[in-house]
Amino acid sequence: MPRRYLNLTPLPEALAAMRQAFPSLDHAETVPLREAVGRVTAEPLYAECSVPPVDIAKFDGYAVKSCETRGAQDQRPLPLLEYARINTGEVFPPPFDAVVMIEDTWDEGGIPRIRKSAAFGQHIRRAGEDVRAGEIVLPKGHRIRPFDIGALATYGIDRVSVRSVRVGIVPTGSDLVPLGTAPGPGQTIETNTLMAEAYLTGVGATCRRYEIVPDDPDLIRKAVEKAVGENDIVILSAGSSAGTRDFSRDVVGEIGEIIFHGIAVRPGKPVLLANVDGKPVLGMPGYPVAAQTILREVAGNLLSWWGLSPLPGGELDVRLSRRLASDLGFDEFVPVSVGRVNGTCWATPHPRGSGIQMAVVRANGYLHIPAEREGIEGGEEVRVRLTVPPASIARTLVCVGRRDPVLGELGNCLSETGYLIHCCNASAMGAVLALRANTCHAASIVIPETEAAWSDQVLRYLPDVDLLRVPVARTELGIASADPLDAGSLASLRVANRPKSAAAQFLLDAWLDREGIETAQSGEPADARVCSAHEAREAGLRFTPIGHESCDLVVREELAADEGVAALILAARSPEFRAYLRAVGREPED
Amino acid sequence: MPRRYLNLTPLPEALAAMRQAFPSLDHAETVPLREAVGRVTAEPLYAECSVPPVDIAKFDGYAVKSCETRGAQDQRPLPLLEYARINTGEVFPPPFDAVVMIEDTWDEGGIPRIRKSAAFGQHIRRAGEDVRAGEIVLPKGHRIRPFDIGALATYGIDRVSVRSVRVGIVPTGSDLVPLGTAPGPGQTIETNTLMAEAYLTGVGATCRRYEIVPDDPDLIRKAVEKAVGENDIVILSAGSSAGTRDFSRDVVGEIGEIIFHGIAVRPGKPVLLANVDGKPVLGMPGYPVAAQTILREVAGNLLSWWGLSPLPGGELDVRLSRRLASDLGFDEFVPVSVGRVNGTCWATPHPRGSGIQMAVVRANGYLHIPAEREGIEGGEEVRVRLTVPPASIARTLVCVGRRDPVLGELGNCLSETGYLIHCCNASAMGAVLALRANTCHAASIVIPETEAAWSDQVLRYLPDVDLLRVPVARTELGIASADPLDAGSLASLRVANRPKSAAAQFLLDAWLDREGIETAQSGEPADARVCSAHEAREAGLRFTPIGHESCDLVVREELAADEGVAALILAARSPEFRAYLRAVGREPED
Repeated sequence: MPRRYLNLTPLPEALAAMRQAFPSLDHAETVPLREAVGRVTAEPLYAECSVPPVDIAKFDGYAVKSCETRGAQDQRPLPLLEYARINTGEVFPPPFDAVVMIEDTWDEGGIPRIRKSAAFGQHIRRAGEDVRAGEIVLPKGHRIRPFDIGALATYGIDRVSVRSVRVGIVPTGSDLVPLGTAPGPGQTIETNTLMAEAYLTGVGATCRRYEIVPDDPDLIRKAVEKAVGENDIVILSAGSSAGTRDFSRDVVGEIGEIIFHGIAVRPGKPVLLANVDGKPVLGMPGYPVAAQTILREVAGNLLSWWGLSPLPGGELDVRLSRRLASDLGFDEFVPVSVGRVNGTCWATPHPRGSGIQMAVVRANGYLHIPAEREGIEGGEEVRVRLTVPPASIARTLVCVGRRDPVLGELGNCLSETGYLIHCCNASAMGAVLALRANTCHAASIVIPETEAAWSDQVLRYLPDVDLLRVPVARTELGIASADPLDAGSLASLRVANRPKSAAAQFLLDAWLDREGIETAQSGEPADARVCSAHEAREAGLRFTPIGHESCDLVVREELAADEGVAALILAARSPEFRAYLRAVGREPED
Repeated sequence: MPRRYLNLTPLPEALAAMRQAFPSLDHAETVPLREAVGRVTAEPLYAECSVPPVDIAKFDGYAVKSCETRGAQDQRPLPLLEYARINTGEVFPPPFDAVVMIEDTWDEGGIPRIRKSAAFGQHIRRAGEDVRAGEIVLPKGHRIRPFDIGALATYGIDRVSVRSVRVGIVPTGSDLVPLGTAPGPGQTIETNTLMAEAYLTGVGATCRRYEIVPDDPDLIRKAVEKAVGENDIVILSAGSSAGTRDFSRDVVGEIGEIIFHGIAVRPGKPVLLANVDGKPVLGMPGYPVAAQTILREVAGNLLSWWGLSPLPGGELDVRLSRRLASDLGFDEFVPVSVGRVNGTCWATPHPRGSGIQMAVVRANGYLHIPAEREGIEGGEEVRVRLTVPPASIARTLVCVGRRDPVLGELGNCLSETGYLIHCCNASAMGAVLALRANTCHAASIVIPETEAAWSDQVLRYLPDVDLLRVPVARTELGIASADPLDAGSLASLRVANRPKSAAAQFLLDAWLDREGIETAQSGEPADARVCSAHEAREAGLRFTPIGHESCDLVVREELAADEGVAALILAARSPEFRAYLRAVGREPED
């Protein structure tokens, strides 16, 4: 029988235990300045020289003695007696004490004249005005930014001592093959350590990925021991769960001390932290979204604690577009898409399955539901951590409803305009409610192509809203079968896998009704299945039409003038998009 | 006579002209997935395979036929007739249609039994649940994030076509030497192209820096022609101003067409854009902060227009701590430090000189004063673009007043706590006003060490505020001279360079008064100068004391309990900081 987690450690407790076990790491390395962007200073950096090193002229003109210019006036110009010609940036020569700009002078018989006296020290950039030799330029613990590089170089600093954390990443799993190898039956491409490397490198760590270790306790132990010897922290990918092939706990428990196994976080529960030879070994869950959460919230937290600095990511306070349930006692992280609708920023959640990587790819941020909350209400203010530049939020069009694949292509047609479509999955009802609450730019609605369906499924929930319906795609649905359907076969029709959409189900039921067929059995083996005419043609099957379903974008009239929404509508009507629809047999009627 | 800019193009017009001249660039290159983070997709990416590729089990348990489980109840358990043992993630076998979790069964005589019927399809992850083969994963124009890498690898994508912009960066200037070479007299380290490389690489461009070209029109022309041939855009560093050695305009005007020369932006005015062989050549100003503005607002703008994507940087709406003047007609960019004081975020400006790189190094963001504004009032809301992670704002302690070098060291002593000191230069009066308006965590005040000065310069402006005065450093000031000062030399005393601080001036005046000396001449050559006892000792000079000045941090009592302010006060009293003060002879009295 498989083991279960006896107790899940709350996230804050787990982090506190981790920080207590691994309070600091003081490794540094010296890198050339050009490679220092994104690294964190291990020591304060002091200016090697003063800038400017000596007094210099701020403008082209003449170096003068200010006392000799006293009394010059518009009515009483004075010639310059003693002076030196000087250009911007040139060393200011003693015994002069001021600069007169060349445009404030004119030449008379080879002698420059002035109409205004010069103040002591005017237009001189003093030595050390920018920085003085020995002054602190950057304190310890500063993440070096691109423009810091110029300043450091100017101040004579060409190598810097930066914090160094070496991370060893060990993938485990007998069914895994490395990226670039075609997976055989039952094999999977190993991708979590690639992701870990990309993320932790961005945080400023120096990562090293090891070869895939099969599910064998001895081999895993050897791999962990080697990685612990060569790094400051080891990430063991997968095998930290509680299944029959999950050896991480036993292995690291044998050679080290378990700090926690299982934390109350979703996704990311089956995580393991141990102390092996004084170094942290983190067992990362195998489900990719769970792995991401653990990388961010646990590994990233430790690296921050050790003084690395994550990439500057934006945060935004927005409203949640619909209620999100969450279990008390679990810290939960939910991918969301944020868009600004009618001046208000709304976050719409994506599905939360820990295997659904696309949810994170489609999202532009995520939110955190703390353990003490049993969910968050629709309309409540939440803080979203963005995974995109904040400026892109204004260019994000949130589309709620059926995530029809054509919308991805529509997004492509839109890309020239700079606008991005974010599609958040919801039922037709969910889409209509989002439209009613005005939390999305468009609803994507797939319904049978009948007036009744439009009326029953859309209009009746939005009686007071002026709507614009933009046809996006149209699909002829029917029953595909190897043999023609006749009276005999119809009577005992078995239809394979339920239709994908409620619309198709509706059309099927209506057709069965019309044909006077009592019930169609579902299940394999089947005689027939519901699909589009295009699919049936491609599969070389007979096709008995049952009706059309339409995929529409529905927007509020008042929003149709919004630049982004207008661009979306134009894209849906563009020849480019129409050509694509024709190619897949889904062009709507005009 | 030097040329002047006849007319400055407003920034929005300049950007529009640039975009019109260079509407798009469609270069792409294919890179391995591991190198794709931060790059922007040139084509949409489609999933190569479905994930999961087939139906798989969500949990450890048994694959069953749901129809055979009907009727199972707590009171009426049923044995499983037909089943297959299955583990999480394993391929789900036909002809079964549901999974029963192992913990919902028990074994009796080798036969698993259930108390609950299984629903059709339960606990099965359907093929394509995450993504279907052929579905769009990322649209064109998406900046690839670390976690996207995992998804792309999972979906079988191991190489990606990304947008490519090659930037050639050409430094010019006869007085320049490369980083790593010690500059001789009148020479400067060439640093702006390093900074350009660091910044534009971060935006996603592929940069190539060329060797320094002397101020010779022929050589500059050849260098530009070569760089134009090898790149998509050329940045010509310095020489775009209107001085006698500024050849950029003439050179690029000869081989191309000038689009603009001089824009109404501060800093950054002397910028040049030309079209050479259909490619943009951008003349970047030589002053580093001006160069930064042009890199960000002009070069970065073009790269965004061409579809690259800047690093995600945060924005924050905050209040401006004091009035900022600005000339009508100029778009101005001002480095600021943002800190949260008593729950409100305040931005305090740094000096705006285009040669003061330290202002940008010290700042954590910058704000934009649009051309149509004649400055911004204190207290007004402004949007700051952050150059640090937004989370660090909560750890930023803004200290307004005298930027005494000891505060840099204090910042170091504080770094273990995670808090950062940002020192914004202001007069003692400016510091007191910031304290009164409650826009800073602490004021840094340097005054003569007398009760009267404290009363006159601080207390009287803050009559109703409870203050905490934290001594930071103390300096004995005096007059350093080669020979002892006697009655004769005192009568005609010439004191070199004005004392650095108002406090020193005050102490000097009071001393002169006490000694009955009428006036002390200022100017070179001098007999004596005002400095600290420590400096005089180090220089081996005679020292005639005139009094003490004290550098204090002053905080509002109500803020002393704030975690960051408390940490600051502790750091000021720490043995580590005291040891540093002793070493520089500036330890305050207890």
